Amino acid sequence: MTKDTVTAGVLLIGDELLSGRTKDINLGFIAENLTEMAIELREARMVADVQEEIVDAVNALRGRYDYVFTTGGIGPTHDDITADSIALAFGVELEHNAEALADLRAQYHDGDVNEARMRMARVPVGGSLVRNPYSWAPGFRMGNVFVLAGIPKVMQGMFADLAPQLERGKPIMSRTVQAFIGEGDLAVGLEEIQERFPTVSIGSYPFHENGTYGSNLVMRSKDEALLGVAEAEVAALVEGLGPRQPRLRT
Amino acid sequence: MTKDTVTAGVLLIGDELLSGRTKDINLGFIAENLTEMAIELREARMVADVQEEIVDAVNALRGRYDYVFTTGGIGPTHDDITADSIALAFGVELEHNAEALADLRAQYHDGDVNEARMRMARVPVGGSLVRNPYSWAPGFRMGNVFVLAGIPKVMQGMFADLAPQLERGKPIMSRTVQAFIGEGDLAVGLEEIQERFPTVSIGSYPFHENGTYGSNLVMRSKDEALLGVAEAEVAALVEGLGPRQPRLRT
Repeated sequence: MTKDTVTAGVLLIGDELLSGRTKDINLGFIAENLTEMAIELREARMVADVQEEIVDAVNALRGRYDYVFTTGGIGPTHDDITADSIALAFGVELEHNAEALADLRAQYHDGDVNEARMRMARVPVGGSLVRNPYSWAPGFRMGNVFVLAGIPKVMQGMFADLAPQLERGKPIMSRTVQAFIGEGDLAVGLEEIQERFPTVSIGSYPFHENGTYGSNLVMRSKDEALLGVAEAEVAALVEGLGPRQPRLRT
Repeated sequence: MTKDTVTAGVLLIGDELLSGRTKDINLGFIAENLTEMAIELREARMVADVQEEIVDAVNALRGRYDYVFTTGGIGPTHDDITADSIALAFGVELEHNAEALADLRAQYHDGDVNEARMRMARVPVGGSLVRNPYSWAPGFRMGNVFVLAGIPKVMQGMFADLAPQLERGKPIMSRTVQAFIGEGDLAVGLEEIQERFPTVSIGSYPFHENGTYGSNLVMRSKDEALLGVAEAEVAALVEGLGPRQPRLRT
């Protein structure tokens, strides 16, 4: 029952991201890891620590994609409202998860098992824990939504814990032809190839580095044979247009 | 006619971002610069090179915020569909902008003024150019939407060009108290302060670095006097809870 295509959305939560105070690196990590697992990340959103915004975004994404991953807002302070928002989005109650509470109590003296720390043990009814190697405080899975920490190291630990649960799609393979030619000279030929290979996604990603310029022409497809043919055509296009060595032009 | 609050949304466009092949750094740049200009970035989205997705996201964001900034998809190749999508979102035609065409012709020999390069001179009817110091190829402004390049250096050049056009809000000031105390010990007191200062936004951003841990407690407000009072209370909370020196605990 392997699906051909498995899709995902990401929701990054936090005022500090939108103010630019913190530069997000979680999205790139999740994107890269999903691609390796043949799960297609289709959309990402970033919202503030505002309950209505989180609820709306979670509901929009979980209805559209097979999986949703959220980061941020699961700490013990008043501005950590992700768990509350997920419960609201699913229309269920939040409860103290017994397993998480036990872990909390195993790590702290009774006097330090306070309301704030217990807040981090709250999981929507029906949810299951996502663990990380750095702290007792878990993330959780609720339906098709995985709720992860905002601190990159912790988020990455949680992602490693949940990854085996994910269904994978049929792998998308990619080939890259590097062209030291301006996109303006490549575009017409490239579009013609794209039209003849509608199931191969052809992207052009220009670069300007160390005085050279050009473009990485990336082909992606689930059909390896077709990909090989398209790659050969793109390579021939580039060969026909000029030198494949770097050249200088402003 | 200065407004108290000016808001913005960002739309990052490109398959290569969602695959993780390219790690976005444009959002952090825009976020930081908007904050310096007292413009509140409220939401960001990242979508693939799919026209319907771009149109829907642009229309959602431009209706909600004073300004929208898009990045990516304005090159000469077939996968560059941002200008088409913006025109569609606004229900207007795309036209070759006379000024942009003149710049193109000034830079290239006639034989190189091809269809693909002319594609980059297309602007929705009613739009105006956004310049950059690196290339003749412009971004553009259409209504409250600024359409910028995806290459960070070029995007930053375009942002510098458009920045003087932006209306600014009343500045939000911020103060930070660093606490080498776990969030679990800070949370109750912090929430109490938040409740007494509803117009001061108090965020807690935990860190774990070099064996120390703690949290940056950030207060933000447009009222400087109130901010000073809130800061003093947060500082007193931290002082009362323990040492402000780094301490080790796993």
